Parts: sequence; C-alpha cells; structure tokens
Amino acid sequence: MRPIEPGQRLTYRFTATKAGIWMYHCSTMPMLMHVGNGMYGAVIIDPPDLAPVDREYVLVQSELYLGPDGQPGDLAAMRAEQPDAVVFNGYVSQYAHRPLTASPSDRVRIWLLNAGPNRDSAFHVVGTPFDTVYREGRYELRPSDPGGAQILDLAPGAGGFVEMVFPEAGHYSFLSHIMVDAERGASGTITVS
Amino acid sequence: MRPIEPGQRLTYRFTATKAGIWMYHCSTMPMLMHVGNGMYGAVIIDPPDLAPVDREYVLVQSELYLGPDGQPGDLAAMRAEQPDAVVFNGYVSQYAHRPLTASPSDRVRIWLLNAGPNRDSAFHVVGTPFDTVYREGRYELRPSDPGGAQILDLAPGAGGFVEMVFPEAGHYSFLSHIMVDAERGASGTITVS
Amino acid sequence: MRPIEPGQRLTYRFTATKAGIWMYHCSTMPMLMHVGNGMYGAVIIDPPDLAPVDREYVLVQSELYLGPDGQPGDLAAMRAEQPDAVVFNGYVSQYAHRPLTASPSDRVRIWLLNAGPNRDSAFHVVGTPFDTVYREGRYELRPSDPGGAQILDLAPGAGGFVEMVFPEAGHYSFLSHIMVDAERGASGTITVS
Repeated sequence: MRPIEPGQRLTYRFTATKAGIWMYHCSTMPMLMHVGNGMYGAVIIDPPDLAPVDREYVLVQSELYLGPDGQPGDLAAMRAEQPDAVVFNGYVSQYAHRPLTASPSDRVRIWLLNAGPNRDSAFHVVGTPFDTVYREGRYELRPSDPGGAQILDLAPGAGGFVEMVFPEAGHYSFLSHIMVDAERGASGTITVS
Repeated sequence: MRPIEPGQRLTYRFTATKAGIWMYHCSTMPMLMHVGNGMYGAVIIDPPDLAPVDREYVLVQSELYLGPDGQPGDLAAMRAEQPDAVVFNGYVSQYAHRPLTASPSDRVRIWLLNAGPNRDSAFHVVGTPFDTVYREGRYELRPSDPGGAQILDLAPGAGGFVEMVFPEAGHYSFLSHIMVDAERGASGTITVS
Repeated sequence: MRPIEPGQRLTYRFTATKAGIWMYHCSTMPMLMHVGNGMYGAVIIDPPDLAPVDREYVLVQSELYLGPDGQPGDLAAMRAEQPDAVVFNGYVSQYAHRPLTASPSDRVRIWLLNAGPNRDSAFHVVGTPFDTVYREGRYELRPSDPGGAQILDLAPGAGGFVEMVFPEAGHYSFLSHIMVDAERGASGTITVS
C-alpha cells in the first residue's frame, strides 16, 4: 500500500484466502478524517459452506459528522465523538422510509460491517431471534443450537452476518440497540408481506 | 406488537423456542426515553442442559439519567450519554450495602442483561475466574476448558450468564470493569461465609 | 486481598489454574484513579497447547488522563471520559517511532490486554488477517478455519491474543480501530524485513 496523488490510480490484486466481511479504507493520515467522510467499503468473501437464503442484505453502519454545506465532515466533532447521525448505508433512517422486504417464513441473511469510525454497533431485529450468527470469520450460532441471539455486537472495523426467519407478516424494526444511535438514524424496517 | 392507550392492556402469548436471557421493552417512540426511564425487563429461557448450581442470581445493568424530583428522566442527558448512575437492578451500589451471599466452594451462576440504553457492560468478579461463560445463546467457555474468563462483555440489549466457584470465605467485589461506571454505581459485593 | 500502608509489602502466592492473559490492579478505592494512573499489569498463563511462534509480543492498551507536571492524572477527566491519549505499553505511538519487528513469513503472536480504565480496544493490523484469535480464555479462530478476523475487540479488563503471518516485507500498521483512539496514540508499526 502507498499514497498516490489526485488523478492517479492504483490497482490492488489479491487472492481471497479467508472468508468474512472485510472493511477497506485508505491508510493515509488522518484516517479518522477519511473514514469519517465516508471513504470506506466492504468486501464479502462467502464462507465455503454458506447455504442459500431467501433474501440477503448488506448493511454498513457508520457515523456522520456534518461540516458546512458542501464541505468535508467536521474533524473536531469526530475527535469529540459527537456524531450528528449514525446510519445504515449512508442515510438517516432510509429503511424506515423505504423498508427492506421479505415474505413470511423467509430466511433472511443480513451482513453487517461497522465502519465506525468511533462507535460500536449493537445490531438487533425486533420480533424474531437470530438463529445464526457469524462474526469476524467464525460461526458463533447455528440453527441447530438450542440458544438464540438478540444482538450482533461489532467494534469499529468488525463485521459478520446474522440470519433469521420471519414467522409471519408484519413490520419488523431493526436498529443499533445503543439507543442514542438508533435515535440518531441507525434504525429501519423490514416489511414482511 | 402495537401501541395501546393508557389504561388498556395487551397480552402476548408466545412459545419459547430459543434459550437465552432476552430483553423486553416497548417499541414505542421515543424508545431511548422509555428504556432510559426503566421500562424494560428480562425473560430467561434456560438452555436444555443447564446443570443445577448452589446459587443463582439475575442482574440487570442499566443507566439512570435523573430528571427533577418526581419527573421522568432527563432525555437531554440520555442523548448526551451522560448518565448520573450505572446500576445493577435499579439502585446505586445496592449490593455493596446488602451483599449477595454464597458459601465457600459454592458454584454460583449470575445471569446478566445489559438494558443500557447506551453503555456496554464489562462484568467482572474480583477474586475468582469465570469457568463458564454463556453469551447471547451459546456457551463460550465450560469448566473443562483450560482457559478462564475475567470479563463478560455485553452491548446494550445483550445478555448471558457466568459461573464461578468461590474457593474460600471473603468479600468478593463485582463490577462493570468500565471503571467510570463502577464508580457511578455498577459495583457490589458477594459475601462468602 | 487487603489494603496496606505505604512502605508495607504484601505477597500473593497462587497456583495458576486457568489460562489467559489476566489483568491485575489494586482493589483500593478509588480504583478509577489508580488504574487511570497506571497501577496495573498483565499475567499471562499460556494455554497448554500453545504452539511456538517466530515472534511474540505483549501489548497493554490504556488511557492517559494528564494532570499537572509531576502530579497524578486528572480524575475529573477520567470521570468525563476525556483521555489525553490512548496508548500501547504506556507511551503515545512509541511503536511508530521504534517499530516491532518480524521477518517475511514469520508467524507472530500478539497478546493484548485492555487495562482501560474506560474505553474498549478494537485491535487491528493493516495488511494481513488474523488466522488465530484467542479471547478471554478460549480459541475463537484457528488457522484451519476458513474464516479470518480483522478485529480483536476487548472491553476494559479483558484480554487475549491474535496470530498472523506476514506474507512479505513491508511496514504494517497496527491500531485500535476506534479511530479517535488511534489518533490519540493507539497505533504503531510492525516492520517486516
């Protein structure tokens, strides 16, 4: 990895050797400023035994620290850990306005990457337990296990997926269960119909 | 799930299909305000292989954001993430004043739910390691494992249990190892005699 | 455990029964003040099956809350959770100035304890995945697993280790992926040559 000038390009070629949902972002200082302005993404390498599901979604949680109109985000707010919003896939509560969808009895897989830059994610779906949890490269829970999970907790830079079955039609909320972040925009709806 | 008016009641009937310690709370906005005022509880579904222990306790960690006398909690403080207290089962340091109890060589199980609404729990007992850790529906550690654990970390909305054996009489402190929260009231004592 | 007066000494003798990386610190009030001033350390008990590696390092993450010159740390800042620095082994970015070292294709094990007192650690190495994760007394990932990990997340008081192989020569950054903490000093370099 090396810095490049504006207008230049740099191509990475790599062989994926390990499964998981991986965060990529620049390694140029100040990284806080760059990640805080949205310069990141997710690469998903399916584990070899990954069974098909009825629906599969990818959510990236991140924080927004707003600067003046048309300007970069507010570095001072990033350093003070005072985000204006916490979001899934870049927009405040977008999936409350345009819900994710599924059908009754669907098995749904949701991949989640927490891009941060600063805050944990405590991903939760209201109304149905996770029967499968895959976190940072390993299965923590399978449908054959007698237990279920209500939270997928991810530090900044971490990722995984959860699976759940929606037993009946309805509106199921999802959110970061860090309630102040849910209020800041890290919440949405899955409409099952 | 649906909102109801004051004075109405709504009964939920469900078949428990997955083991774990589950948080329940309203899903009415603003949830931060409601959870921050104590509107939550825990439902425990024992895993099928759960062995009997000598003592079993349930602790729910939460934050207090105090409003004026006789008034609801302070929503602005909740949003600013500045709790006045962090507590187990609702009161500051109550188990320092009236300790939990056990006898020497007792195996003790402590269930823990972190109701938040905003802060992690890093549950720790001073003086004896956890030889059993069950977290979000799965065993992470069993007595036959060569390793031990010192922390059960739970994001808001997450739960589990730990087990430990107290080798001799004495006063064993427990706390959230996020030290500022221990000072805010998330600490107590287990008296073994 | 019991308090002692300045000038006195107290010797603890114990048989290590459980593997892991354990935090020790005083249990005298106020613990936040004591841990916040650096009164802690790590004890490592190797798991019985621990294979030799080419390099092995121990990092202890902690926060600094600076007081006046020559005086103890700032308790008010500890309570406000506003650290001046977040560090590995006591100094800001020391391993950026004097990197850890390894040779190409070395397997490197890094033990990590998060002494806090208040903040999580989200340990990450840029450029190579963790193929082994041991956290709070148990293996979460082994090289034979198809998945890899990018983050070892540790609450205050928790510890573990990660292992990785450096495929080629270069400068590999490591950091807490809570970006504001990386900027505060929780970052360094592993020079592979």
